[in-house]
Amino acid sequence: MGRWAPDARGRLERAALELYGEQGYDSTTVAEIAERAGLTERTFFRHFADKREVLFFGAAALQAFLVNEVENAPVSAAPLEIITAALDAAAIAFFEEIRDFARQRQVIIAANAELRERELIKLAALAAALADALRRRGVSDPSASLAAEAGIAIFRIAFDAWTADPDELTLSEHIRASADELRVVTSGPLSTTSRT
Amino acid sequence: MGRWAPDARGRLERAALELYGEQGYDSTTVAEIAERAGLTERTFFRHFADKREVLFFGAAALQAFLVNEVENAPVSAAPLEIITAALDAAAIAFFEEIRDFARQRQVIIAANAELRERELIKLAALAAALADALRRRGVSDPSASLAAEAGIAIFRIAFDAWTADPDELTLSEHIRASADELRVVTSGPLSTTSRT
Repeated sequence: MGRWAPDARGRLERAALELYGEQGYDSTTVAEIAERAGLTERTFFRHFADKREVLFFGAAALQAFLVNEVENAPVSAAPLEIITAALDAAAIAFFEEIRDFARQRQVIIAANAELRERELIKLAALAAALADALRRRGVSDPSASLAAEAGIAIFRIAFDAWTADPDELTLSEHIRASADELRVVTSGPLSTTSRT
Repeated sequence: MGRWAPDARGRLERAALELYGEQGYDSTTVAEIAERAGLTERTFFRHFADKREVLFFGAAALQAFLVNEVENAPVSAAPLEIITAALDAAAIAFFEEIRDFARQRQVIIAANAELRERELIKLAALAAALADALRRRGVSDPSASLAAEAGIAIFRIAFDAWTADPDELTLSEHIRASADELRVVTSGPLSTTSRT
């Protein structure tokens, strides 16, 4: 094994996902991941802090990207439009190319309580960051929080449908379909007037 | 300390919240809670599995109540109406009477990462249970998931506003205001038609 390993990061990622899928996340060690990738543990730790980070290393970049999109959205746009457009842009920038990775990752996370909790915490942090970005644009609460939380719900549901969908729609298309569906779901009469 | 302790559970709850508020959740022991309440540790463990359960014991009853409300909602009601009506009923049955407890609890949870995570997991489980209940009524996905997730977002934001609100609106009123606000936030043009 030379010091120069082409696509070491990608090889480690693929090896980790294979092993998590084959023998479970808990039973897999960093040594096994490095061995499967034909690399050293030292190389693993040059790319990832631990075996969990293989599944979550993109979270900070995704959050920074989404916050930047919200901050730079047109002045006239409505809060949920801003969030949906940001998610759509992130779909293209981050996810469309890696659907197989995303699908394998979903299966691994669904099978492990600790990873499911980590994913929830990541999404809650994302919602809080998006609500903050809306507030910096002058959107007041509860609109800012509701638009951010609704956006994360749209994203989660679109992401699940995208990784499960056999018809191969894009993540963008799923995000737009979920956003439209949320509009339908919420478009009943106002609750204050529907009460007798 | 006699074997018969009137309102032992309430005394333990109040003692626990006082101590968590005064010295932090992590630093508080069950022995201290029992002592503050004038009861034994044995009595504490007759009511709660551990010190965390003082803050979360109502979760299972709340979930069962909400699922039952969803299952028994009028046939004609729209998904988000069903969820909002169930949350409104839960507000009255579970929360309106205990606002001071709820407020203290929110402050304690906000101050502790482990408790914030537990709260997230509880709310995610609640959303999943509500989506399942909607599916049993014949609501298909993504509507069932979106209505459930949107309902939990409404509830969280209403709950935060209720525990923070100095004007003393009821939790019911906050839930209805949040539900109406979500309708406003989502009522822009459909995303598919707003794209150029």
